[in-house]
Amino acid sequence: MWFLSDNAGPAHPRILEAIDRANEGNASGYGGDALTARTVARVREVFEAPDAAVYLVGTGTAANALALACLCPPWGTIFCHAHAHVQEDECGAAGFFAAGATTTPVPGAHGRIDPEALEAAIGRAGASVHQVQPGALTLTNATEAGAVQDPDEVARLAGIARAAGMPVHMDGARFANAVAALGCTPAELTWKAGVDALSLGGTKNGLLGAEAVVLFDPARGWEFELRRKRAGHLFSKHRFLAAQMEAYLEDGLWLDLAGRANAAAARLSRGIAAMPGARIEHPTEANEVFAAWPRAGHRRARAAGAEYYLWSFDDPAAATLDGPADGLVPARLVCDWSADAAAIDRFVALARGEEVAQGA
Amino acid sequence: MWFLSDNAGPAHPRILEAIDRANEGNASGYGGDALTARTVARVREVFEAPDAAVYLVGTGTAANALALACLCPPWGTIFCHAHAHVQEDECGAAGFFAAGATTTPVPGAHGRIDPEALEAAIGRAGASVHQVQPGALTLTNATEAGAVQDPDEVARLAGIARAAGMPVHMDGARFANAVAALGCTPAELTWKAGVDALSLGGTKNGLLGAEAVVLFDPARGWEFELRRKRAGHLFSKHRFLAAQMEAYLEDGLWLDLAGRANAAAARLSRGIAAMPGARIEHPTEANEVFAAWPRAGHRRARAAGAEYYLWSFDDPAAATLDGPADGLVPARLVCDWSADAAAIDRFVALARGEEVAQGA
Amino acid sequence: MWFLSDNAGPAHPRILEAIDRANEGNASGYGGDALTARTVARVREVFEAPDAAVYLVGTGTAANALALACLCPPWGTIFCHAHAHVQEDECGAAGFFAAGATTTPVPGAHGRIDPEALEAAIGRAGASVHQVQPGALTLTNATEAGAVQDPDEVARLAGIARAAGMPVHMDGARFANAVAALGCTPAELTWKAGVDALSLGGTKNGLLGAEAVVLFDPARGWEFELRRKRAGHLFSKHRFLAAQMEAYLEDGLWLDLAGRANAAAARLSRGIAAMPGARIEHPTEANEVFAAWPRAGHRRARAAGAEYYLWSFDDPAAATLDGPADGLVPARLVCDWSADAAAIDRFVALARGEEVAQGA
Amino acid sequence: MWFLSDNAGPAHPRILEAIDRANEGNASGYGGDALTARTVARVREVFEAPDAAVYLVGTGTAANALALACLCPPWGTIFCHAHAHVQEDECGAAGFFAAGATTTPVPGAHGRIDPEALEAAIGRAGASVHQVQPGALTLTNATEAGAVQDPDEVARLAGIARAAGMPVHMDGARFANAVAALGCTPAELTWKAGVDALSLGGTKNGLLGAEAVVLFDPARGWEFELRRKRAGHLFSKHRFLAAQMEAYLEDGLWLDLAGRANAAAARLSRGIAAMPGARIEHPTEANEVFAAWPRAGHRRARAAGAEYYLWSFDDPAAATLDGPADGLVPARLVCDWSADAAAIDRFVALARGEEVAQGA
Repeated sequence: MWFLSDNAGPAHPRILEAIDRANEGNASGYGGDALTARTVARVREVFEAPDAAVYLVGTGTAANALALACLCPPWGTIFCHAHAHVQEDECGAAGFFAAGATTTPVPGAHGRIDPEALEAAIGRAGASVHQVQPGALTLTNATEAGAVQDPDEVARLAGIARAAGMPVHMDGARFANAVAALGCTPAELTWKAGVDALSLGGTKNGLLGAEAVVLFDPARGWEFELRRKRAGHLFSKHRFLAAQMEAYLEDGLWLDLAGRANAAAARLSRGIAAMPGARIEHPTEANEVFAAWPRAGHRRARAAGAEYYLWSFDDPAAATLDGPADGLVPARLVCDWSADAAAIDRFVALARGEEVAQGA
Repeated sequence: MWFLSDNAGPAHPRILEAIDRANEGNASGYGGDALTARTVARVREVFEAPDAAVYLVGTGTAANALALACLCPPWGTIFCHAHAHVQEDECGAAGFFAAGATTTPVPGAHGRIDPEALEAAIGRAGASVHQVQPGALTLTNATEAGAVQDPDEVARLAGIARAAGMPVHMDGARFANAVAALGCTPAELTWKAGVDALSLGGTKNGLLGAEAVVLFDPARGWEFELRRKRAGHLFSKHRFLAAQMEAYLEDGLWLDLAGRANAAAARLSRGIAAMPGARIEHPTEANEVFAAWPRAGHRRARAAGAEYYLWSFDDPAAATLDGPADGLVPARLVCDWSADAAAIDRFVALARGEEVAQGA
Repeated sequence: MWFLSDNAGPAHPRILEAIDRANEGNASGYGGDALTARTVARVREVFEAPDAAVYLVGTGTAANALALACLCPPWGTIFCHAHAHVQEDECGAAGFFAAGATTTPVPGAHGRIDPEALEAAIGRAGASVHQVQPGALTLTNATEAGAVQDPDEVARLAGIARAAGMPVHMDGARFANAVAALGCTPAELTWKAGVDALSLGGTKNGLLGAEAVVLFDPARGWEFELRRKRAGHLFSKHRFLAAQMEAYLEDGLWLDLAGRANAAAARLSRGIAAMPGARIEHPTEANEVFAAWPRAGHRRARAAGAEYYLWSFDDPAAATLDGPADGLVPARLVCDWSADAAAIDRFVALARGEEVAQGA
Repeated sequence: MWFLSDNAGPAHPRILEAIDRANEGNASGYGGDALTARTVARVREVFEAPDAAVYLVGTGTAANALALACLCPPWGTIFCHAHAHVQEDECGAAGFFAAGATTTPVPGAHGRIDPEALEAAIGRAGASVHQVQPGALTLTNATEAGAVQDPDEVARLAGIARAAGMPVHMDGARFANAVAALGCTPAELTWKAGVDALSLGGTKNGLLGAEAVVLFDPARGWEFELRRKRAGHLFSKHRFLAAQMEAYLEDGLWLDLAGRANAAAARLSRGIAAMPGARIEHPTEANEVFAAWPRAGHRRARAAGAEYYLWSFDDPAAATLDGPADGLVPARLVCDWSADAAAIDRFVALARGEEVAQGA
């Protein structure tokens, strides 16, 4: 019953096999090997972007911060959702990589940036030399609240950014979940909708630790390479990053895994929604469930070893086990590809207050 | 016949097995897992440093730059060998991580910092507010020229730094090779000799990509953690870094692998030294051979598929295949743990001009 | 009829005389002159802070950013009012000087940070390594909205910061106006209330361009000096900064000038308040008037050459001459020491709609 | 007998008069005033550069570092003379402003960069992503050793930079001295010779504290403005910087003052050269004298109150009063516009060992 994070899950066996295969003999370092070249070609193919500059790094924060540093000057501000990873969970990485660039949090329901709020925020920014200037827009898809933005929504937000002269980045730590949920093509959700640079997550979806950065306009590719190197993110045994990403994209494994995670979250969400007194806080559109249910259910689930965060974006103080048994307590539950239907059902049963067989 | 770099070699099978084992079920991310805790304890044990703060990152540049940023303020200068990795091969990472700190290259034979040159360089630095101030000393062991510095040498250089109020960092990308060559303990070569922080390499010696940073004084541990996070170097599926490092230190695997690499380099060095007209440029004390031999031999080896760099620290222009067949051409040859005696012998025979059976 | 900014006003004649006097012969550069030593001693005396480290720079942004960089680490966040100069008018200087540190805007009426909002903001910050950490608190006194915070208010906010382990900075670009308004001592409004570092403004109050930074705890003085130098803020002909500051503090000139500016603003505020349909937006406690009155009055004042900003912190869109003649339009009017009672009265008459003699 | 530095001298009376005149009434801040506009136009005229972007700052370090940050990316290295101000006297400002950019010192006699050494240094730089890349060239004219580079020399060095894709900056802290010595036009010594950006000094030549940055290609002008603001170098009462610079360029005052300083240095140099046992270390081409003479002469001069630095670029250890009376001791003597012939003659007489009347 692990719903702590999708990065708490295991790597998929095909990923480990790919690493084993890549371990044959010697290979040039720093991305000069054949496997890396093949992987780059594969990413371009998946995105129908034959000219894109494609790079691999080991973490999502690195992917985001390096991409944003290429898009936003030091005196720029990055518009992002108020609960974006860039804003809340990267310890200021964007400012570090972009030499002091700032972020401007923008509100919006369910982790989606509200278009009018974005226009208003841009309107308040950068009127003169005394203010930081509009620098870049970053969207998160799937969002931090488990919602998914479709190509039209992305295009609308990207259009607002573009009208203000800003490039657009997408934090796609859960991009596979979004694509799997929407059934659109990767191209439709990115460059066709106005996205200039994508952080394509893999780690949360079955890799050991590999993310791609896709610069649809390759003009800043060399700059990216230099920034990556001087940030210590150019791996010498680069083939082991490439092996992961290649296997990930092979035969649609990435979408298959994301689909499994999404389905598990849907099952979990349905189960919770059906509990008396429970409330789904954000629509379950990808692999995260945000819901509140009575404290007694939390206590039973915790006591049985369930792992997940008590969590609320809007009312953090409510996320506590201290209080009356019937009080609603909000939580975040994340499913990764390996989430098990039996464990989900057992969890729901516990949270509801049913008797559960020990072994489930 | 791969002698390009020790990072061109494969990971050791026991490392891959450890990753497989670590892939069971779920685990807390970001280093909050039991495997990471065990690995930290193991590093402390190996270094007889029960209080040390120990962290894992994915690359050597990250290890060096993060450690140095904890030791050297933005207005400091880092004294390093003129051919140190920090100086020549990290695209300015130290300056990036340490908010503009500079480096001061110091000469010395075979990649060793010359103590008198160090004293002179410190003497010229930081007399007033107008100059950058003495910030830190970084030593490389084994050196970039394949030499090894023993505890006494390290202690002498560290003492000079300390007398100037500077902490001491050791770039140990090939620390295992140094320890294997010297037969000393890890503690003797580090904190007992005055080293405050060590970048403990693993990637060049059989890992996929994992390095440890050991802060013998743990006072700046929390700062390191925050710097690591905001630099994108905190891996979410941290257990896969820990699995590598734990297996590396298990039953002395790290020293066993380094010993193999050193022995291979010694065999190669002897073979080349015995070639007519050849010259060993730097003493072969670890796993790198720096030697020059007639151009004709290079051409034969290259034609047969040998991979290595033409290389000279002192006379880069000489490192070219263009020129008379009997001209001496310098090269760097690096052996990793997987280096094969037959391939070495075949290489030497080719470089000498002997007939070589195809399959060797 | 200039009410654009207090930095639009002239320098006081005694300041120019002091510069003339300081121009005799030669003097050591970079602050090594006798006049600088005397000025530092004078600042310490005025603040009853014999150990304080005192430095001079040329601009308020430099003073704020250098002081904050000494107080807040790169991974820290600086809590400031949502409309603080640091937040809105320094083009990200704090992030630049403090190597990527961020700011956290906190609401509050009239430019004062609301204590409960501050506690809430601190409570949301820095729970783990993933977030930026509480770094420093900066208060602005007099506030950007022309209010004044007394020693008790300062002490309360400083106490909240201190309880969270944060040092406290005060942006005193209009510190003289605050002291003149309150009638307290400079010490009471700073270190006695828990302020660690003060940017003591001079430029807005009759100097050509000189501000002091007072570090009540001198431990970071040398760091400040190095930061100042490498930021290009160490003036070589330092005596000309010192001459301004010494004359400023001589015989209470600084408080005399601030008192004049405050009195002028009070006169202006009373005049506007008495206008039919006018509204004072923020209490006029120092030398700034924030008020709204009918558009027709603005048009008359503008047509007659009055210089001031249409301005609203809360409703910027309302600050426009486009619209109905009787619509209320908000404005900011700033008085400096040289503000002239006749010009004030003429301005009020114009804004009211009275006939005004041409020459007034 | 002050020869400590040209920044130890007074401001010229016409500069103070200009400040007095500029102090009439109110004026828009931050460079939006008429006097600033007029001054920018005047600089363009002097440089025959009608499109140049021209900005004022308060210190030479600010001018250099801001200009270089516009020319050199964070991963670039700035080629400069080994004794350039940028390298030795700005506490790492270039690295701070340019987000970690490094400097590469290049040797050459008398503070001039040796063209072949520059080509060699560029040849060693930036072969791959692992190294910092060629970023910019900065020349100092007059040099730190008091030599002057004519348009042909500048053009040769600039051509080498340009061939490597690098822009060219000139540190003209003593640009007026160079122009006065050469008799060429400002345009000939800058953009006509391939210089992209100039730091035009004023402070060392009779101003209180004002320098101009001239970007001959105005494309990066807005970037410069933002960098200047966020570095705290945009003065609010900007008219007082402009007043200085305007008066400086009025009726050739700047060249007149520089000519006086150069003439004084020539007189001093001749006097020292005629002393028994003395040696001129660098040719006296501008306003600095580098010479060595017997220690006894230094002792007499010092005892009589002469102010100057014992100084040697090549042998700092020799610059000491400790040692035999007849040992040669090197020194730097700088003349500013106010240097007095009688004081020079008295100094030479003292250094020689002649009797000197007390009052001279």
